[in-house]
Amino acid sequence: MKHYDCIVIGTGPSGQKAAIQAAKLGKSVAIIEKSKVVGGAQINTGTIPSKALREAALHLTGASRRGWFGRSYRVKKDITIADLVSVADQVIRHEWEVIRDQFDRNNIDLIWGAAHFEGPNLLQIVRDGDTEMLTADKFLIGVGTRPAKPPHIPFNDTDVLCSDALLKLTTLPKTLIVVGGGVIGVEYACIMATLGVRVTLIEGRNQVLGFLDDEIAGAFQYLMRQNGITLRLGEKVTAINSLPPGDGRSGSGSQVQAELESGKDLRAETLLYCVGRQGVCGSLALENVGITYDDRERLRVNEHYQCLNTEDPDNPRPVEHVYAAGDVIGFPALASTSMEQGRRAICHAFGVQVDNWNQDLFPFGIYAVPEISMVGKTEKQLTDEGIPFEAGIANYREIARGQLLGDDSGMLKLLIHQETHEILGIHALGTGATELIHIGQTCMALGGKAEFFIDNVFNFPTLAEAYKIAAYNGLNKLAHV
Amino acid sequence: MKHYDCIVIGTGPSGQKAAIQAAKLGKSVAIIEKSKVVGGAQINTGTIPSKALREAALHLTGASRRGWFGRSYRVKKDITIADLVSVADQVIRHEWEVIRDQFDRNNIDLIWGAAHFEGPNLLQIVRDGDTEMLTADKFLIGVGTRPAKPPHIPFNDTDVLCSDALLKLTTLPKTLIVVGGGVIGVEYACIMATLGVRVTLIEGRNQVLGFLDDEIAGAFQYLMRQNGITLRLGEKVTAINSLPPGDGRSGSGSQVQAELESGKDLRAETLLYCVGRQGVCGSLALENVGITYDDRERLRVNEHYQCLNTEDPDNPRPVEHVYAAGDVIGFPALASTSMEQGRRAICHAFGVQVDNWNQDLFPFGIYAVPEISMVGKTEKQLTDEGIPFEAGIANYREIARGQLLGDDSGMLKLLIHQETHEILGIHALGTGATELIHIGQTCMALGGKAEFFIDNVFNFPTLAEAYKIAAYNGLNKLAHV
Repeated sequence: MKHYDCIVIGTGPSGQKAAIQAAKLGKSVAIIEKSKVVGGAQINTGTIPSKALREAALHLTGASRRGWFGRSYRVKKDITIADLVSVADQVIRHEWEVIRDQFDRNNIDLIWGAAHFEGPNLLQIVRDGDTEMLTADKFLIGVGTRPAKPPHIPFNDTDVLCSDALLKLTTLPKTLIVVGGGVIGVEYACIMATLGVRVTLIEGRNQVLGFLDDEIAGAFQYLMRQNGITLRLGEKVTAINSLPPGDGRSGSGSQVQAELESGKDLRAETLLYCVGRQGVCGSLALENVGITYDDRERLRVNEHYQCLNTEDPDNPRPVEHVYAAGDVIGFPALASTSMEQGRRAICHAFGVQVDNWNQDLFPFGIYAVPEISMVGKTEKQLTDEGIPFEAGIANYREIARGQLLGDDSGMLKLLIHQETHEILGIHALGTGATELIHIGQTCMALGGKAEFFIDNVFNFPTLAEAYKIAAYNGLNKLAHV
Repeated sequence: MKHYDCIVIGTGPSGQKAAIQAAKLGKSVAIIEKSKVVGGAQINTGTIPSKALREAALHLTGASRRGWFGRSYRVKKDITIADLVSVADQVIRHEWEVIRDQFDRNNIDLIWGAAHFEGPNLLQIVRDGDTEMLTADKFLIGVGTRPAKPPHIPFNDTDVLCSDALLKLTTLPKTLIVVGGGVIGVEYACIMATLGVRVTLIEGRNQVLGFLDDEIAGAFQYLMRQNGITLRLGEKVTAINSLPPGDGRSGSGSQVQAELESGKDLRAETLLYCVGRQGVCGSLALENVGITYDDRERLRVNEHYQCLNTEDPDNPRPVEHVYAAGDVIGFPALASTSMEQGRRAICHAFGVQVDNWNQDLFPFGIYAVPEISMVGKTEKQLTDEGIPFEAGIANYREIARGQLLGDDSGMLKLLIHQETHEILGIHALGTGATELIHIGQTCMALGGKAEFFIDNVFNFPTLAEAYKIAAYNGLNKLAHV
């Protein structure tokens, strides 16, 4: 029976970085993967495929250049799913290689199979009927999540789909209903609308992406509608029905029907259900190591990412040698933070000190059309907390590179402390937003103030200049206070 | 006769920002423009047109997506100059509006005409035979440069061109010789090669863009050659001749001949001569205000951007109320630095304190194919100065977004101090390089070290992640020292 210093369960972002960190500390490491490929949802069903579709859709439809050539400009007239998937497949295959190469270079044993605990330090791996027993001093659980599939939704992989099934569609529908205005629902709604699909998005709250700054959310919703998406906000779906051909009110093909509490009857060729994801730790036999999980199969951890036993909810106990990271521990469930959680968990497991991290500096990146990114507080949070601020705004259309890129709706907003001129929050909407945010994030992390952007020299022409324009805008307003 | 607190001569980047800064300080300001449009070379003949051509060329040829679709992929098969110029024209017209709007909002008087000094505080403006006299307390000269046109080069605006004339070409040549491997020559060589023109670039030194880090320059030259450009480095042009039709050795159209000192005879349809630019202050009658200029009509300034009288070269005297900024004062002659020079000059003129600026933090952005950007020192500079460093490198092909963008040759290099782990230089080559550099520049300016990038959370997938990969790479090497 082989013994390791550390066993990692799951090869998604948190597991990858955890395994590599442990190996770099000189530990013997195994990493377990139960599916047929490495990378988890990040590589195979979530982040990468959706971003690859997005890039391909933007390019092939010419959407990113419509500012130049007018709204009817298209690079390629008849886009098939094959065009789109071929791009994703290339990227996915390459990412598999990169990950496996990293494991090899760091002497990490990649073991295929489904793991479950047989005892506090004992793991059984089941693979094609074979079993293997392994022991380790430390464990990291990074098993991720899968789309939640409530039993009352008639999922069928043809016209009522979860986000995993959407990627397997062989033809583009003409019409699509998206249920759920979270990150996944919004990203796919935008991609599909860019491809010319008529999209209706249903969200129970009065705003998509509830965590966004109100002004950015408002601008984004305006742009979604400009892009042809119908938003049904504050609406609740009471039933979803897959209607056989001929049963629909109009047309002869099969239809999906979504009934809303408000009495509306919505129809489309296809429906994408994107409300929630759930953990997949039910098969790990965690009872054998004394760890509990919630009804969505998610784990609770303490500040060191040690798993908790919450049998007594008032007095959760850590199971000190078993850590968890990534989507399975819940919010924010982003690949970026998951990686860092995995690394930090392992550093704690092996007694390596790392700096405290300031959760205010976690960036959010939404790969919608256009991109959205934020770091720090929103206007509403600052107002609620009684922190006096002023907003400095730069519009891409005032910036030469915004013009060159044909992006006339992008914007960057800095929230500046009224007295200290510290940067309290940064909100970006438009081309390159997810990249651009890191200039401001770096400034926030290292204590720079709004004046930094005034004095700094930016390449011309760049979108980065937006920081200077926004800082001027904000500081000019403050000069009149 | 109207009197102003400040008169600015020239509406390019340095003049614009100077005028706006003076207006924001509550001063009365006039700005003089002798051509028919505002914006100077930046907007009309240099920065913006070349960048607009570049964006259009990259998009219309699909070059930025060849990593996905193979080298033969093209969005639009027959590209005319009209396709390209229509994009530039839209952007240029918009920039004119933005600039004029800024002047209006800040109550800056825009005065058309050619200015010259009649006395230390007296300016005459000549326009269509009319003249107008103006006085001011302070002056800023931001008249810029034009392409140098040595008399032995037979410029003719049809086949022997300076960079201004290139923009007026109505058809794309099949073959092009570019003389000069500086920023302008390199940018146009790359754009033309992207459009399918067979380009030969001649440079007297053994490397294009002599100020680049050697590794970046080497990689860039490799990529230029991969893009079909023939580089003739270390070669000197002895004669350029425009041959009439029938006189060329091959083909029947007119040809340009470049004879090299090494005996080579190079032929092409068109030749672009890009060696040097020269100031345009000969017509300002600067003798009336006691300012001298060099044989390329460029001005010398002190650290406050006050013009100097260098009649006694050992004892240059400042002319305290006349400032100069931008290309006319020479290196680095970038729009980005020119703007900040203009602003700083005005702040000094009106007694406003600004922070010292660290010239080590000036970024360089080269809009070649691919983009190049740098800030701080090169490996060679650090080695010459005896500063011990290690290089940390990230290749875009290791990064998910590099894959998604189809950029498999991009790279980011951090030069890290061996002991303190300070960032000493950053060198980027690839998609988004001119934007990306500002993350690292901000870190350098605010005293962050390589460890900052390890601990920071980056959106996934972004090119910004390259900072984390490069920091790991560099620090891993240092761990073995």
